[in-house]
Amino acid sequence: MTSRSPLAPAAFPALPDIAGVTLRVARAQYKNWDRCDLTYVELSPGTTVAGVFTRNICCSSEVELGREQVKGGIGRALIVNAGNSNAFTGYRGREAVEQIMGQVADHLGCAATDVFVSSTGVIGVPLPRDKARAGVEAALIAEPCTWEAAAETICTTDTFAKGSAASAVIGERTVQVAGIVKGSGMIAPDMATMLGYIFTDAAVAPSLLQAMLSEATGPSFNSITVDSDTSTSDTVLLFATGQAGNAPLESWDDTGADALYAAIRQVSLDLAHQVVRDGEGASKFIEIEVSGAADDHSAKRVALAIANSPLVKTAIAGEDANWGRVVMAVGKAGEPADRDRLAIRFGDHWVAKQGLPVDGYDEAPVAAHLKGLEVRIGADLGLGDGRATVWTCDLTHGYISINADYRS
Amino acid sequence: MTSRSPLAPAAFPALPDIAGVTLRVARAQYKNWDRCDLTYVELSPGTTVAGVFTRNICCSSEVELGREQVKGGIGRALIVNAGNSNAFTGYRGREAVEQIMGQVADHLGCAATDVFVSSTGVIGVPLPRDKARAGVEAALIAEPCTWEAAAETICTTDTFAKGSAASAVIGERTVQVAGIVKGSGMIAPDMATMLGYIFTDAAVAPSLLQAMLSEATGPSFNSITVDSDTSTSDTVLLFATGQAGNAPLESWDDTGADALYAAIRQVSLDLAHQVVRDGEGASKFIEIEVSGAADDHSAKRVALAIANSPLVKTAIAGEDANWGRVVMAVGKAGEPADRDRLAIRFGDHWVAKQGLPVDGYDEAPVAAHLKGLEVRIGADLGLGDGRATVWTCDLTHGYISINADYRS
Repeated sequence: MTSRSPLAPAAFPALPDIAGVTLRVARAQYKNWDRCDLTYVELSPGTTVAGVFTRNICCSSEVELGREQVKGGIGRALIVNAGNSNAFTGYRGREAVEQIMGQVADHLGCAATDVFVSSTGVIGVPLPRDKARAGVEAALIAEPCTWEAAAETICTTDTFAKGSAASAVIGERTVQVAGIVKGSGMIAPDMATMLGYIFTDAAVAPSLLQAMLSEATGPSFNSITVDSDTSTSDTVLLFATGQAGNAPLESWDDTGADALYAAIRQVSLDLAHQVVRDGEGASKFIEIEVSGAADDHSAKRVALAIANSPLVKTAIAGEDANWGRVVMAVGKAGEPADRDRLAIRFGDHWVAKQGLPVDGYDEAPVAAHLKGLEVRIGADLGLGDGRATVWTCDLTHGYISINADYRS
Repeated sequence: MTSRSPLAPAAFPALPDIAGVTLRVARAQYKNWDRCDLTYVELSPGTTVAGVFTRNICCSSEVELGREQVKGGIGRALIVNAGNSNAFTGYRGREAVEQIMGQVADHLGCAATDVFVSSTGVIGVPLPRDKARAGVEAALIAEPCTWEAAAETICTTDTFAKGSAASAVIGERTVQVAGIVKGSGMIAPDMATMLGYIFTDAAVAPSLLQAMLSEATGPSFNSITVDSDTSTSDTVLLFATGQAGNAPLESWDDTGADALYAAIRQVSLDLAHQVVRDGEGASKFIEIEVSGAADDHSAKRVALAIANSPLVKTAIAGEDANWGRVVMAVGKAGEPADRDRLAIRFGDHWVAKQGLPVDGYDEAPVAAHLKGLEVRIGADLGLGDGRATVWTCDLTHGYISINADYRS
């Protein structure tokens, strides 16, 4: 890994064991490197699964297959390949995924469709089947490893391993939720990917599990952006082993469902924030809060227009209170807005209200806020009750260096 | 001006005089600089006008007023202020524009609504009315100047003055078309602007003039992007003085209308390309051609997704034949696409077809193409007859330096 992002947490967090989840890693040597690059997660029989996937039309075979597999609701294993995304590789890429599914299924004595596969790394090169076969073989018999080892093994150009955990009480049982994620933008030098995996020992029916994941994804993984580019492989999977012994949750109305959802949402948000904190070249973590929009959907579109504006992102990199660029981004979003009702703030300091700079505007506290590692931008549209918060990072020379000063 | 873009033409072109158009410049000193910053164009009585304006909702008073004024179809004068965009300045900004309109109208003895005003530069600061009054007063009585002087005076952070001309035959008369434009991205350090002005001595009814400008804008000014950010002040105005003595054109069916349109389109395209060639930090001029899309609208959305992708733009800056990023951009556009029919080329060299790298792919000629100052990217979607071409520039350290290494 290259030098650790200045926005990284101090250390990898302590994650609890999740009954029914066994982690193993191995070396498939997808690239010529000295590290593990294949992760194998074995899940106890009866584990249910939910998934959300990239909306990129040119998605990988892994995503195409995964989207079908989650409909079955059952997961027995997860394989993650790092170093080769297997995207844009046609039938040869698909055959490689099917080989892995079959190999793991034979070992576990389960259906091939219960084995989920993700891949991340270089594109346009079919995953080498011989390396995959040997790597999986080694992983199947490897000693179990830690969360941190697994979180490191799924990484590509990430500068730190990312994990998060929370717990919830369902009836008389305390259940655990733990997750790992990789991603640092759409990640050059290869077109890359956000991959996230969350595990709980709670017993949850697949339909409710999917509902919880879909609901939790909107305000977390789908509310972050590094460079507006959408990977062809983005995947988040949520597995529930049912080993905690709680009365299985079937619907939102069941006791403990809300608590479990809160834990899943907390882990999702924490993992999503860590992805932004590892954004390519990032030197500032930026929270953008839009209020007063026509509705929540509109607020999110405006917030993303601000978050994806190169001029806003470079202004923050330069610690420049250039609120005019925020105004510009609001106006270009194509959503209802009224210039003369618009208010903009940095941190808690309003710089413009009702379409004008505030009277007696004092830039000193704003400049102080912008010097920090965490910057908050607020835009109130003054139209309605729509709200949204998204997170991004700044756009720096580091991003250009990573993505341009390199020949793949 | 900072150092001239490496993509700039060798020199400012020779532009013809346009009968009925008189150019003058003056110093309003909107900023503390040693240059002219106010341009005054006097137009002979009977001049018709057409305009296209930014779609940014948070637009300036100049844009709001201009949009109404073109409905009248008559233009007698144009004032362009450089150094202050007067955007996001509320009623005070509007009063400054109305002052200028009244002052010029008094001098010419015309209606205030026949005087068009544009402003470009810092935002959030109302245009100082005293400086505007003195600047206009000086401009009204200044000696006429050259096209190049006017083209320089409307510039802000541009690195070269931009002009273009063409002619057309209408019946037995040859008419001239000449235009100037400023813009180099949405231009930091201030949120800035593309302003374009095209003049012809042809006689053209306002409704036809507007139709010609609207038609010409789509494949020119509306087919370029530097950083995906849309200014609050973008404006293109087309004035026709009628001094050439041609039989006035009333409809597309009139003799010579097609020829005049072709000249207007040629000038629009040339000026639009020059804006891209002055894109902030640009080191490569990039043409993106999408074919085989469901329809032309869909093709343009895909082309703009490629053109606005930071990962594609940084890859070109790095002279990296990273076609996977083009695939990613096609897939994220949200338009109909089929991964397994997609073909990608750089220059004339196909790198991928039918969702796979081409057999025996040789990177050498592709690498040679990418070393040039002009790069062409092609994407064929293999679905229909939809086509579009857009132009952009690469994303370099220069862009970051201009936009981040600066405190406004």
